[in-house]
Amino acid sequence: MKLPNSIQNLIAVFEQLPGIGPKTAARLTFYLWQTPNHFVERFAQSLLDLKQKTKQCSICFNLDETDPCSICADSQRDQTLICVVERPLDIIAFERMGDYRGVYHVLGGVINPLEHIGPDELRIQELLDRITKFDNSSHQARVREVILATNPTMEGEATASYIAKKIKELEARIQNPKPIKITRLGQGLPTGADLDYADIWTLKQAWENRRQL
Amino acid sequence: MKLPNSIQNLIAVFEQLPGIGPKTAARLTFYLWQTPNHFVERFAQSLLDLKQKTKQCSICFNLDETDPCSICADSQRDQTLICVVERPLDIIAFERMGDYRGVYHVLGGVINPLEHIGPDELRIQELLDRITKFDNSSHQARVREVILATNPTMEGEATASYIAKKIKELEARIQNPKPIKITRLGQGLPTGADLDYADIWTLKQAWENRRQL
Repeated sequence: MKLPNSIQNLIAVFEQLPGIGPKTAARLTFYLWQTPNHFVERFAQSLLDLKQKTKQCSICFNLDETDPCSICADSQRDQTLICVVERPLDIIAFERMGDYRGVYHVLGGVINPLEHIGPDELRIQELLDRITKFDNSSHQARVREVILATNPTMEGEATASYIAKKIKELEARIQNPKPIKITRLGQGLPTGADLDYADIWTLKQAWENRRQL
Repeated sequence: MKLPNSIQNLIAVFEQLPGIGPKTAARLTFYLWQTPNHFVERFAQSLLDLKQKTKQCSICFNLDETDPCSICADSQRDQTLICVVERPLDIIAFERMGDYRGVYHVLGGVINPLEHIGPDELRIQELLDRITKFDNSSHQARVREVILATNPTMEGEATASYIAKKIKELEARIQNPKPIKITRLGQGLPTGADLDYADIWTLKQAWENRRQL
C-alpha cells in the first residue's frame, strides 16, 4: 500500500529517532493527525526554536540560551570543582540531585575506536586548557578537583583513565604545587537493587567497595 | 535546575505523545539538538505538511492527500465489500496483508461509556448511510458484506454487536431482498504463539473455533 507522502515523510522522520521503530513511528504520526492544529504547530515551532535559540556554552559545552551558560555564569558556583560528563543530559541528572555546587565540562561522548571516536573528537584538550588557564591567571582560583563522571561502561572507564593520565602529565609539566584531586563516581549496587538480579561485575564492585559499619 | 525554555518546551511537547515519558522526551530533545539543522527543519516541515496536505476521505474517513481517498477512488476495488475499522492505522495492516480488494470505513474509535464515547461520536450513521445509498441508487452495486474489524477487546466486541444490530434493523426497514453478510474476524491463537503463554480467553476462542483436518 502506498501511503500519502505527507504521512510517509513524517513516519520516516520519526523512525530516525533513537528507540522509535516503524510501528511506533506510524502510531505517533496518526496520533498527531488527530491532535488540534495548534499542537502540531507548537511542535514544529519548538523544533525550530531548539536549533535557533539554544547555544553551546563556550566554557563547559553545555546547552543553554546564553553563552556562558547559566551554570558557568553563576558566581555562587565553585569554579574550582569540575564534573566531567559525556553529554548535556547527564548534567540534568546531577542538577536534579541538588547537592553539587561546582561546574561541568561536557566531553561530547567517549573514546570509542569502533566508532572512530578518538581523544581529538572529544573536548579533552578544552578541559586541559580550562585547568591550565585557572592556574596561570590568578593563583587564587584553581581547579581543586576533577570528577570524571563518564558512564561506568568499558568506553567510559577508558575515557576516564585517559583523561586522568593527561591531567597528571599536565600537572607535571606546569609543576603544580598542590595536586588536583581526580575522582570517579562510586560503584556498587544501586539503591533498591535485588542481589539476585545483579550482574557479576556490579557484585564485584560492591564487594570491593564494601564499607565498615 | 531550570532548563532553558527552548529545551523545556520541546520536552513538554514530546511528553504529550503516547508512550513517551519524561526521560525519553529529554533524550529525544537532546538527540535532536545534535542532529544537523536540515533534519530538524525537515521534521518541522513534515509536521506542518501532515496537517496541511492530509485530508479525511468523505466516504470512508481514511486519511489521504485526495478526497475521495485512493482506495475509494480505485474502480478496481469491490465497493460492495466494506471492512469497518476503528482507526486509519488499521487499514495499513489490512493493506499490508494484500488480499483484500474491498473498501473500508473508519469509525474513529469504539463505543466506550467510561470515556463518554457513544454511538453518535463514531461514524456509525455514516456507515448506515453508505449501505442505504448503494441500495437506493442502482440495484447492481449494493453492499454484499460488512466485515466488522474492530479490535477483539470488550469495547470492540460491543461496538461490533451494536453495528450488526443497527444494520439488521436497517435491512428490515428497507426490506432488503438479499441479506447483507455481517462478519467478524476469526479469533484464536496467533501464528507463532506459545500455548503456555496464551491467556484463557484466547485459548477458549481457539478451542471453540477449532477446525477439522
